[in-house]
Amino acid sequence: MMTKAIEKAAKQYARPTTQIVAVGLKEAAEALLGYDEAAEATPLLLKEIKQGVRQGFDGFVIACFGDPGLYAARQIATVPVLGIGESAIHMACLLGRRFSILQPSAVDEPVIGGAYLDVLERTGLVSRCCSVRSIGIDVSDLFADLDKTTKALVATGRKAIMEDGAEVLLLGCGGLAGLDQPVEKELGAPVICGVVSAVKFLESLHDYGKKTSKAYTFKSSKVY
Amino acid sequence: MMTKAIEKAAKQYARPTTQIVAVGLKEAAEALLGYDEAAEATPLLLKEIKQGVRQGFDGFVIACFGDPGLYAARQIATVPVLGIGESAIHMACLLGRRFSILQPSAVDEPVIGGAYLDVLERTGLVSRCCSVRSIGIDVSDLFADLDKTTKALVATGRKAIMEDGAEVLLLGCGGLAGLDQPVEKELGAPVICGVVSAVKFLESLHDYGKKTSKAYTFKSSKVY
Amino acid sequence: MMTKAIEKAAKQYARPTTQIVAVGLKEAAEALLGYDEAAEATPLLLKEIKQGVRQGFDGFVIACFGDPGLYAARQIATVPVLGIGESAIHMACLLGRRFSILQPSAVDEPVIGGAYLDVLERTGLVSRCCSVRSIGIDVSDLFADLDKTTKALVATGRKAIMEDGAEVLLLGCGGLAGLDQPVEKELGAPVICGVVSAVKFLESLHDYGKKTSKAYTFKSSKVY
Amino acid sequence: MMTKAIEKAAKQYARPTTQIVAVGLKEAAEALLGYDEAAEATPLLLKEIKQGVRQGFDGFVIACFGDPGLYAARQIATVPVLGIGESAIHMACLLGRRFSILQPSAVDEPVIGGAYLDVLERTGLVSRCCSVRSIGIDVSDLFADLDKTTKALVATGRKAIMEDGAEVLLLGCGGLAGLDQPVEKELGAPVICGVVSAVKFLESLHDYGKKTSKAYTFKSSKVY
Amino acid sequence: MMTKAIEKAAKQYARPTTQIVAVGLKEAAEALLGYDEAAEATPLLLKEIKQGVRQGFDGFVIACFGDPGLYAARQIATVPVLGIGESAIHMACLLGRRFSILQPSAVDEPVIGGAYLDVLERTGLVSRCCSVRSIGIDVSDLFADLDKTTKALVATGRKAIMEDGAEVLLLGCGGLAGLDQPVEKELGAPVICGVVSAVKFLESLHDYGKKTSKAYTFKSSKVY
Amino acid sequence: MMTKAIEKAAKQYARPTTQIVAVGLKEAAEALLGYDEAAEATPLLLKEIKQGVRQGFDGFVIACFGDPGLYAARQIATVPVLGIGESAIHMACLLGRRFSILQPSAVDEPVIGGAYLDVLERTGLVSRCCSVRSIGIDVSDLFADLDKTTKALVATGRKAIMEDGAEVLLLGCGGLAGLDQPVEKELGAPVICGVVSAVKFLESLHDYGKKTSKAYTFKSSKVY
Repeated sequence: MMTKAIEKAAKQYARPTTQIVAVGLKEAAEALLGYDEAAEATPLLLKEIKQGVRQGFDGFVIACFGDPGLYAARQIATVPVLGIGESAIHMACLLGRRFSILQPSAVDEPVIGGAYLDVLERTGLVSRCCSVRSIGIDVSDLFADLDKTTKALVATGRKAIMEDGAEVLLLGCGGLAGLDQPVEKELGAPVICGVVSAVKFLESLHDYGKKTSKAYTFKSSKVY
Repeated sequence: MMTKAIEKAAKQYARPTTQIVAVGLKEAAEALLGYDEAAEATPLLLKEIKQGVRQGFDGFVIACFGDPGLYAARQIATVPVLGIGESAIHMACLLGRRFSILQPSAVDEPVIGGAYLDVLERTGLVSRCCSVRSIGIDVSDLFADLDKTTKALVATGRKAIMEDGAEVLLLGCGGLAGLDQPVEKELGAPVICGVVSAVKFLESLHDYGKKTSKAYTFKSSKVY
Repeated sequence: MMTKAIEKAAKQYARPTTQIVAVGLKEAAEALLGYDEAAEATPLLLKEIKQGVRQGFDGFVIACFGDPGLYAARQIATVPVLGIGESAIHMACLLGRRFSILQPSAVDEPVIGGAYLDVLERTGLVSRCCSVRSIGIDVSDLFADLDKTTKALVATGRKAIMEDGAEVLLLGCGGLAGLDQPVEKELGAPVICGVVSAVKFLESLHDYGKKTSKAYTFKSSKVY
Repeated sequence: MMTKAIEKAAKQYARPTTQIVAVGLKEAAEALLGYDEAAEATPLLLKEIKQGVRQGFDGFVIACFGDPGLYAARQIATVPVLGIGESAIHMACLLGRRFSILQPSAVDEPVIGGAYLDVLERTGLVSRCCSVRSIGIDVSDLFADLDKTTKALVATGRKAIMEDGAEVLLLGCGGLAGLDQPVEKELGAPVICGVVSAVKFLESLHDYGKKTSKAYTFKSSKVY
Repeated sequence: MMTKAIEKAAKQYARPTTQIVAVGLKEAAEALLGYDEAAEATPLLLKEIKQGVRQGFDGFVIACFGDPGLYAARQIATVPVLGIGESAIHMACLLGRRFSILQPSAVDEPVIGGAYLDVLERTGLVSRCCSVRSIGIDVSDLFADLDKTTKALVATGRKAIMEDGAEVLLLGCGGLAGLDQPVEKELGAPVICGVVSAVKFLESLHDYGKKTSKAYTFKSSKVY
Repeated sequence: MMTKAIEKAAKQYARPTTQIVAVGLKEAAEALLGYDEAAEATPLLLKEIKQGVRQGFDGFVIACFGDPGLYAARQIATVPVLGIGESAIHMACLLGRRFSILQPSAVDEPVIGGAYLDVLERTGLVSRCCSVRSIGIDVSDLFADLDKTTKALVATGRKAIMEDGAEVLLLGCGGLAGLDQPVEKELGAPVICGVVSAVKFLESLHDYGKKTSKAYTFKSSKVY
């Protein structure tokens, strides 16, 4: 379900010449809800990356907002690997000075934490995020009623704009893929889906012929 | 000369369907060497943006690494406006954890300062820049001997990698456009030209239908 | 109107031997409301600085809280140039640990942004500012009813003290010049007008014989 | 070999009533040299934690300086889990204002990066680390000649003190366990082994009856 | 009264072989309520440290959350000196990602300030503190009704968890010693008393044989 | 000797109507060389402040670069109290983007530390200080050969400009008072004496009628 939504969003905005293959991790939870689930899923993800490298893919997108395994994947591949969290964040910075992230959770968390904080710290862009807000619906219920999910995103996004000063809104989960345009239509401010951002940035890097630097951080002691 | 180099680089990597129009500011200095020159040139730049808005351009690139007039231009236009400084910086962050900027100057500055520091602070990414190094050639002499300029970039870039820990190198001036590939070929690590980054990011934003947020910072009290 | 208020405040606290000349920019908006207006006005401002340099002034104050053109003006002049934003901020830091800025705007902005954030980042003192609050009156209406403006400053300043922990209050616009003492009288905490701060700091620098450093940032490639 | 050294150091400073069980991950590399190896090893590590939870251990130490799987392990266990990286860092902060980390690597890295930077950012204590220096010996060669390794630590540590201003030195790898005292004896300044720090801190937490908070970050959606 | 509570807490969690001597400063206020009182009390505190050094104590705890005289005491002694503020903070960081401090004060302060901010800045851990909240009871009234004080801690701690995202709570005054367990029992999240943290950390440092570094900051020009 | 130099510098730049009274602390060391000496001297300093308050002084300068007792003194007095460290730093920020501090010490310290770091952190301006350099002469020997001291300041200041990118130089000790002009004459860049800065800023605050805020930080629980 989630993989389908992600694939659809990726294909909708990809250029005709870009081939998208969406892969779900069968042995992992559909949504990675904690550090434990993310850690368990990462080797499965890396296995797919290694296989993709052998198959000659031109780039990889890790379609979970927490960008699990991002640095490990970059050590494995030479072609670019982008996380949807970092991609959404970097794209948002081109359109506004501050952004908020809308997260799928039934519970409102009072401050920026968890994997959202990790992604922000990894990019170095904590100072440009003005809030992470829960939409009041758990990730497992996102697809039960898409209209309800969209309305929750609109209502939460409006609060982020009015009360937190957000200028750009980020869909904080791959499972929200496809809801960017309906929410943006209601709110006026740009709404960014990390899946689309990552696909478009990968196309840009491919056109420009740029690959992951192997100078220090993403150099591996292993040969793949 | 500089405008020509910028135009050529932009066209080289733009997609066939992307139309590039490069405009130099006739009444301004060819290279903006200080806060005074940048301030004087900005209204001329904004005049071009306003004219471009009327002509229906889909986006604008400010092709000076200091991104002069960026926020003002974003207030004027509704379509995206990208500076080459911020674009190079954001693209570099997708390829490595730390980057260095190579600046055209005969004099070596001991620390990160001037317009380079401004661009880094505006993006919020100061912590990911490990150095700004002068290549020993002033901007006015960049085109006198392109081979010498390339060699200076290679030598300075190598120091940035070896001594400062750079993983990605940025050409810190629009006038260096076109020298990314020869330098990268020598050094191995990715070399990013802000002009190309900005063009590719504009294409991405256009494909995705995203425009500058008018929620707060880039809202204007004037009508254009 | 605004220029008159600024001149009056400057003269009220200047020493008898200090000669104040207040100059409005005829071709610019009276108040610079956005990055676009500030960018357009800056060359006009710099023209006045250049003329003032030729006339032998001992120092300059840029009397707009966003400190537009500050660094360019410092490249042009050798005598000190102070912005009222930075001056108010530095003076506040001598009197309390945290300060708030009261800005003339009908609309309340939820976070610190725009030119206020720029000034704070330029000084490096973001961490000492606990809030920027709108007083509910636009800059164009400040002079319509000075008593109402004063009351709005008092009410907003009280909130800044009680809810944000402000210890010092800053008048966030040259147009508020002259309202520092009536507001301070009501609130007890120090209220700082940037115009007065800048004039007093210029007198200090002049007595001490200190001028802008031309070592790096404010060195110009042009001769004035 | 490494597990033996870690076990010995842990037991040397543990209280008589503290029972230490050292477990190596058989299917993982002995030393985790990159993000890829750490990611692959983490589920194996978590499997041991889960088993240890069932066996009723009072606390866990992750004895790799990069603290891999730390947050995931804290979601799994209710008793405290400490990484040797964070433990060494927090202990160092009780003894000096600044510390340096000595890392086992044949290659000198010019800046703080990789897993060392991650650990520092996770603790929030980047500003108290003045350098990470390589000792010129790869982790695989640490045990080949312990005297040579000790001398390399002394020489590198001396540079860290003299040139970087280090007040405390950290052994940046579990494999260096046991070399703290000989190095400290030569240098005078405190030399901290993360394994010992973690064991002593675990004893403290156990005496005090404190366990990992399950309020937000370390709450799990799974039941273990 | 306060000294008694501190002594009791220290002895409750100290190991049987650890000898605790609690000393109140007779000529100082019982609680140090401001920078003035702390500054006046510091030489008296240092006199006790000097005497303790002559008596051969193995370590010292400064049992006031603002850690007054900490650096001076470290210059005087060679054995470790720990403040209860820093100790509570470092221990909290081992159990959760964010913590709040509960301070004894009748007045609610809107932001983190005063000696609490100083301690946080000295440790470098400002970013991990999500709030400092007043419990509505002044330090002089803490002992009047311990049940009321405990209830106030529970109510304020609950707000810190629910509204500020706290994962660990810190008793922000030596006078609150002994109330950690009853409050933790009500709230579930760990509640840390700095006195206990400091005693346990001192025991750890003593077991490990570590002393204050005399390399730079805590080197003294005097001989004690 | 030091008090004489400080008094002379203060009087040289004070306005004719400003009355300067310089007071040395008879029972304290002439120069406060560590946290221990500063802590011991602070109550003596505060005693002078209290006496000065009773005598009706309009403001106080604490003429030691570490600004010992600054916050305590502000709680005691209602008139402004300025430290020479913070005053020099704030004035430097009006003249250049980055500054270096020249400290009287025979030993070169590799990084910014000690009381210099404290002053920078207290002002919030760490990011604008590019270095603290020792001049190779201890504070006790500053007056032995003023010509030698001046030459050491010039040589060290030149390195700070050339190697560290300093734009403004600060005399990092009250005992260097009077050497600002000879050093500036040699180097061109502004050289700031904190004593003069503090006196000029006090005059400014007095003219403007501003006093220390008693809203939060500098409110005292005692009556003076």
